[in-house]
Amino acid sequence: MATHPEPDEPDLGVLSSLLLFAFQDELFTKLAERGFDDVRPRHGAVLAYLAPRGIRATHLALRSGQHKQIIGTLVDELETLGYLERRPDPTDRRAKLVCPTERGLAQMSAAREIITALESRHAERLGDTKYRQFKQLFTDVAIHQRQWATLD
Amino acid sequence: MATHPEPDEPDLGVLSSLLLFAFQDELFTKLAERGFDDVRPRHGAVLAYLAPRGIRATHLALRSGQHKQIIGTLVDELETLGYLERRPDPTDRRAKLVCPTERGLAQMSAAREIITALESRHAERLGDTKYRQFKQLFTDVAIHQRQWATLD
Repeated sequence: MATHPEPDEPDLGVLSSLLLFAFQDELFTKLAERGFDDVRPRHGAVLAYLAPRGIRATHLALRSGQHKQIIGTLVDELETLGYLERRPDPTDRRAKLVCPTERGLAQMSAAREIITALESRHAERLGDTKYRQFKQLFTDVAIHQRQWATLD
Repeated sequence: MATHPEPDEPDLGVLSSLLLFAFQDELFTKLAERGFDDVRPRHGAVLAYLAPRGIRATHLALRSGQHKQIIGTLVDELETLGYLERRPDPTDRRAKLVCPTERGLAQMSAAREIITALESRHAERLGDTKYRQFKQLFTDVAIHQRQWATLD
């Protein structure tokens, strides 16, 4: 059996949380500078998965890995702040879609620009090939770790 | 300028949060199975950085990237649950050290075993060399991202 992690080497949980908090720090500081100063890192669990045409709350919960109750609270908060609204799903009248408003679309576009610049900085430092390998390995490990709950 | 991320490719924030929640899911489920059923994922910000001989609360805040007030609340909760206690720092009598109790040391040892097995699973799947490269790149990106707040 391989022996991971080495003593004193940060484990996957430590690395994930350090990167997540530092990523949120930059993203939400720069969003605030562009006038989106009322969204908080916790709203990322909804904002990161919004689609221009809308998405069901159950899919937001699935994709973000957060509980449905938490997603419901975040959607309520973002609706009050004017970033999104619930509309009837045209494919199923009993269901609702969570849709970005004009302000929500502007936030999505600003976040996309900020994140692209953030990732480009890492890619330029490490080299494009190495950064792409890192993203592929990161995606692979995250997907396999998510499968643990259902496989184990 | 490089164009990262590609459309529809998960960004660094999405990957970090997916991996963090899935890591916590496995760790805290398995801790509960071993009798540590009263600790919660939020306590990870303290538990992950405890040292057998103790650590100052200010260092816990620095290492975890969490605010000092949040660390204070988590330390209070873990003290009530019997995982740690505040003791005077022998090198500075005005300062306090956060030290694990017997139960805290047992939890640290159980968590280390669970995390080692979790990481070995990824290392065996990807191959040891590739997994080690991934951890090195992950550490590099996390450290550089944390520097953003002070450099920018």
